[in-house]
Amino acid sequence: MNEKIINGKECSKIIRQNLKERIKEIDKNLKLVVIRVGNDEASKIYVNSKGKACTEVGIDFLEITFRDDVSEEVLIDKINELNNDEEVTGILVQLPLPNHINTNKILNIIDYKKDVDGLTTTNIGKLNNSEVSIIPCTAAGVIDLLKFSNTSLESKNVVIIGRSNLVGKPLISLLLKENASVSICHSKTKNLSEYTKNADIIICAVGHPNLINKDMVKENSIIIDVGINRLDDHICGDVNFDDVVNKVAKITPVPGGVGPMTVTNLLVNVVKCYEFQKN
Amino acid sequence: MNEKIINGKECSKIIRQNLKERIKEIDKNLKLVVIRVGNDEASKIYVNSKGKACTEVGIDFLEITFRDDVSEEVLIDKINELNNDEEVTGILVQLPLPNHINTNKILNIIDYKKDVDGLTTTNIGKLNNSEVSIIPCTAAGVIDLLKFSNTSLESKNVVIIGRSNLVGKPLISLLLKENASVSICHSKTKNLSEYTKNADIIICAVGHPNLINKDMVKENSIIIDVGINRLDDHICGDVNFDDVVNKVAKITPVPGGVGPMTVTNLLVNVVKCYEFQKN
Repeated sequence: MNEKIINGKECSKIIRQNLKERIKEIDKNLKLVVIRVGNDEASKIYVNSKGKACTEVGIDFLEITFRDDVSEEVLIDKINELNNDEEVTGILVQLPLPNHINTNKILNIIDYKKDVDGLTTTNIGKLNNSEVSIIPCTAAGVIDLLKFSNTSLESKNVVIIGRSNLVGKPLISLLLKENASVSICHSKTKNLSEYTKNADIIICAVGHPNLINKDMVKENSIIIDVGINRLDDHICGDVNFDDVVNKVAKITPVPGGVGPMTVTNLLVNVVKCYEFQKN
Repeated sequence: MNEKIINGKECSKIIRQNLKERIKEIDKNLKLVVIRVGNDEASKIYVNSKGKACTEVGIDFLEITFRDDVSEEVLIDKINELNNDEEVTGILVQLPLPNHINTNKILNIIDYKKDVDGLTTTNIGKLNNSEVSIIPCTAAGVIDLLKFSNTSLESKNVVIIGRSNLVGKPLISLLLKENASVSICHSKTKNLSEYTKNADIIICAVGHPNLINKDMVKENSIIIDVGINRLDDHICGDVNFDDVVNKVAKITPVPGGVGPMTVTNLLVNVVKCYEFQKN
């Protein structure tokens, strides 16, 4: 069974090791600044793990916090200051922001060359146009895992479930670039199993435990499970792993599949930002 | 048979009539400026028909021509001048440009609020993000025809053939916004008929005469044929119209289907640009 598992920890480790070497060769300190607003506990944990990962590969890390009644103006001024600061390589605004803040407006203040999350309109447009861009971390991680597991994408029938700006939508562009045929399903799709039963590769990113079972997948298909669902006593993905594992060729576990790739690609994106700014 | 035909001329006429009324109510002259480079005969014809359509609905039209050895710098200076000219509502650079010119660079000089073709990175990114944007004319025309023919898109299985920046890619975003399930096929797709045979709606935009025949379509499906192929003695689409017409529920003819919608949406986009600039 083990040879079926696409090991995200292992893939992540290799990328981080290579990154560490590359960062050593750069004759400038790289620095990621994270802006965090309010007291959301999950956000604190995520930001901490990003900081830890930066330190491990040799990227300086700074967290700037604001109270949750901060105004848009104050955030905009801070981001503009960071845009103009040559010592800052990358800027990340930890989401979600409080309701009184226009998230899209704030994200688009970030200079696209410092946009480590790849969520500015400019980076989204460039990705859609197949230009060099900063790619949203989780979507990039899915492609990394497919390549790590030697999965060819050319002419493959790939089904994406979920159309978020963070995962589903950027994956459309990334998969088309690899010459896959791409179908996008979502909450309004009526005949989901008609899609999944014909898929060579299924990428599931909806946050719905056990959405995909054995009867919905093709023999020898490849499953990338992006879902991270916190149940009472454990974490699981969108795919019923135990049910499908004997039928499919390869599958990512949850945890230990796509999860570790997200922060790894944040680190990759800091280096990409440095290279963007150099040119 | 006639009730099966989605009449692009008729749809176009209604939109242009409404537009004419709207333009009359605007207390400012709208003006479209087209930049054309070189002596390409097809480009001359296209630009003429754009000019004629503008005049018909009451939009001022100016064509600026350059020799095909014009430098990027000269084009950039001209576009910047037009960006800053308050009397100019929309700017269009007629493609193709000569090989020594970086097309993408030139297009992105256009202020996105004057980008009537919807091809700047900003408008592409906004469309992808489901924000208000200028939508590429032909893609917008496809959606117009589906609505004109009372075709519901929600939960429909839509297959797009062709992944161009002008048609296929913007249609992904437009169709997802309407809650359709979307599949994108292209030259590297191996089992095209597996996709088309299951499609409620097929949108074909590849430029390949007779690519789609009766055996490839589902009973009562809806076919939008974006192809315009010039054969020896006539123009035809990508779909074998005579072969499929008795099997499908609705179909666009070529000519007289999607064709007229492209210039119509250029006119729509001039008005949209005016509204963008007002806000």
